[in-house]
Amino acid sequence: MNTRKAAIIGGGVIGGGWAARFLLNGWDVAISDPDPEAERKIGEVLANARRSLPALSDHSAPREGRLLFTHSVRESAQDADWIQESVPERLDLKHAVYAEIQAHCRPDALIGSSTSGFKPSELQQGSANPEQIFVAHPFNPVYLLPLVELVGAQESVARAKTELETMGMKPLIVRQEIDAHIADRLLEAVWREALWLVRDGIATTGEIDDAIRFGFGLRWAQMGLFETYRIAGGEAGMKHFIAQFGPCLQWPWTKLMDVPELTEELVETIAAQSDAQSGHLSIRELERVRDDNLVSMMRALKARNWGAGALLNEHDARNQPPLPTDITKPIETVHRFIPVDWTDYNGHVNESRYGQAFSDASDVVMAMVGADAAYIAGGLSYFSVDNHIRYLAEAVAGDEVRVRTQVLEAKGKKLRLYHEMIHADGHVLASCNQLLVHVSLETRRSCEPPPDVLARVEALGEAQGKLPPPQGVR
Amino acid sequence: MNTRKAAIIGGGVIGGGWAARFLLNGWDVAISDPDPEAERKIGEVLANARRSLPALSDHSAPREGRLLFTHSVRESAQDADWIQESVPERLDLKHAVYAEIQAHCRPDALIGSSTSGFKPSELQQGSANPEQIFVAHPFNPVYLLPLVELVGAQESVARAKTELETMGMKPLIVRQEIDAHIADRLLEAVWREALWLVRDGIATTGEIDDAIRFGFGLRWAQMGLFETYRIAGGEAGMKHFIAQFGPCLQWPWTKLMDVPELTEELVETIAAQSDAQSGHLSIRELERVRDDNLVSMMRALKARNWGAGALLNEHDARNQPPLPTDITKPIETVHRFIPVDWTDYNGHVNESRYGQAFSDASDVVMAMVGADAAYIAGGLSYFSVDNHIRYLAEAVAGDEVRVRTQVLEAKGKKLRLYHEMIHADGHVLASCNQLLVHVSLETRRSCEPPPDVLARVEALGEAQGKLPPPQGVR
Repeated sequence: MNTRKAAIIGGGVIGGGWAARFLLNGWDVAISDPDPEAERKIGEVLANARRSLPALSDHSAPREGRLLFTHSVRESAQDADWIQESVPERLDLKHAVYAEIQAHCRPDALIGSSTSGFKPSELQQGSANPEQIFVAHPFNPVYLLPLVELVGAQESVARAKTELETMGMKPLIVRQEIDAHIADRLLEAVWREALWLVRDGIATTGEIDDAIRFGFGLRWAQMGLFETYRIAGGEAGMKHFIAQFGPCLQWPWTKLMDVPELTEELVETIAAQSDAQSGHLSIRELERVRDDNLVSMMRALKARNWGAGALLNEHDARNQPPLPTDITKPIETVHRFIPVDWTDYNGHVNESRYGQAFSDASDVVMAMVGADAAYIAGGLSYFSVDNHIRYLAEAVAGDEVRVRTQVLEAKGKKLRLYHEMIHADGHVLASCNQLLVHVSLETRRSCEPPPDVLARVEALGEAQGKLPPPQGVR
Repeated sequence: MNTRKAAIIGGGVIGGGWAARFLLNGWDVAISDPDPEAERKIGEVLANARRSLPALSDHSAPREGRLLFTHSVRESAQDADWIQESVPERLDLKHAVYAEIQAHCRPDALIGSSTSGFKPSELQQGSANPEQIFVAHPFNPVYLLPLVELVGAQESVARAKTELETMGMKPLIVRQEIDAHIADRLLEAVWREALWLVRDGIATTGEIDDAIRFGFGLRWAQMGLFETYRIAGGEAGMKHFIAQFGPCLQWPWTKLMDVPELTEELVETIAAQSDAQSGHLSIRELERVRDDNLVSMMRALKARNWGAGALLNEHDARNQPPLPTDITKPIETVHRFIPVDWTDYNGHVNESRYGQAFSDASDVVMAMVGADAAYIAGGLSYFSVDNHIRYLAEAVAGDEVRVRTQVLEAKGKKLRLYHEMIHADGHVLASCNQLLVHVSLETRRSCEPPPDVLARVEALGEAQGKLPPPQGVR
């Protein structure tokens, strides 16, 4: 197949995001935007996209397409397979752009609009080929978030759906046109409610954001509104949930007081749709899916030290066990429970995550000799250069494990450790013979630690050197 | 400090979640609920909590408290430090419960209510010690989601905040009482809008959930509404965003048509609050934080094969490179970009994630001999038993890398591989000498592969055995 070509009409945040999504999926892209800063701005969006989109996949990415800035809508649109309009939300402007596009584009080209609110029938007014124009409403950042709402003529929308799926996106066909489609209706309701809260001095923007990201935002990243409430209904399910919270529809819990009547018919409709959506899993199964998703996402944010993940780090810091002080015997460096994000398709801890536990164990030894977070921030650290791991038994999510560490050698730049990961019931899960080398984070080369750290690490090595060599050392 | 004691009045989904949160943070818990099924139901919530909450942390958990089911509110409440009421949303019922609690509890006990909607002034009606009663509104699942909205008298709420923080939660003090506090006002607005969409036949429950979890739900799990829109405003920031989307407040984008007027004062307030919240980071920095969070969360969901993560897996399956067929030279088993979730505090790929790349590499060799996903589902697999990794150079997020694999030995149950991870510019990042053993997933013991797989793996071993031994093998 020849390289596909996309025309991007309007290169703001959304147009730039579309450009990145097409380019990094191997399409050639021609951009038309009157802003003299467009090239710089799109370059910055692209730089962001290049550092994040390709690494979402566990395979290599397609070869990036060619990027061209053109001087007119006409130049961009001709020969394009897909023309995406992302100009400001003014209907007269959009109509003028479509007239220019349709005067020059291929008759079989797809013309998508990024409009947040206009209906296809409005966009198509005055067009000679109205069915060519449809809504393809994406979400910022377009190069990462998968959702695209498609509204318009069946044939155009079906073709657009196939193209978007090929680019890893999630097209959602909106079957009946409506102002603001689906997602933005929900967003707009929240936005208006939030404006009230700020205006009435109930909450600040920061407090409202916290109310979202430490609570229901985490739920909504993996299940939506109805599947979440299906679980909240407990064993009695969706109907019970509606029965329980139905009456509050009449209460002033929002400024949105024009409320649909909860007829028996509507309750039946919701329950039946919810069954079709989630009925293949029991409530207990859904709960476990939800919990595993939440743990995995919160721990992902923990590694980024952000939001609910930053909170987990604060909690861990507050409950940090004291550093071991008795160096005359093997040191307990790790004591933890196995999280679900360490497990793989075999249903057990992935071989790589034993390495994580041993890496955490050597962090504790480093902290014991003064090579802690502040030391690393100061530009010095230890890097592993050689790990020999032997896998002796399986571990699964929830298992309580310890790592016991013995210092085999500590001289100058070198630090050799022997770790054993041990299940709470006493059997050894794995061992690791690990060589670390002290490095400068500036030169990224090995160097001796400063005298105080060197003295501590060598004293540790001497004390532990008196212990019998561990069985697993070869 | 003595063990703290919590009384849980009402043991449904929310009360049970509170019980789990307290117990797993080392509190003793006394539960009072008239439902004869309460003990079974809470046992199930606790089982869920035990498999997820402790593993959120990278340290060991406190020793679990003692759980007691009592026969009365009185019995639970006496001696409790914290009494949490989670009975149905009927004010008369709640008043009766508080009367019973306050007749028997310690005068300094905290009395929190899980109410979604009632204001403290309503809850406190008729109480002799009204300031003891406050709102502590959590989110399901209470044992995982950190947010708790606190509303009530300053002293009670301040003490409650300290207790909740100690349990790893995120208390949000609501400074002014209002129906439904903060989060549920937003939730209720979305709920009502969603009911309209279902009632009018615009979208099903499943379509609405997809509109959330493939789009803005992912954004809201890490930043909220305002910080997200600050970024959407681009370089021009929050005021630009409001200017751009302000007019649509007058448009019928939701059924919530009672809209606050966007006065200059309100715009200034929002912009100033947003600066205070997010102004320490530039828009480009916020974008990178957001993107790294999104990539990390989506890849966390990829490991769970759910939602946006399941979509990534479908995309990867569609773009799966063909299995290598030329076995007369070392095999290219992995070709990928390094994702941000593989990196650690040193700013480079964590040692454990090299192991992930090598684990993925051996999966490809397994697939080549017929030990693929279907084979594993059938009850047979290969497990790593010995990995010797040598780290030669650093890699960072975004790096393009390949793994080249040579089969060193393939006989019976044994499969020995040598991997090299190579940067796109040609230098070797790490090597791994890996021994795998064929296992039965039923017995979890080693066994020979069936004849067809054995023939293929031995043929592979023979072909590769003719190659010169790799440099890195010792």
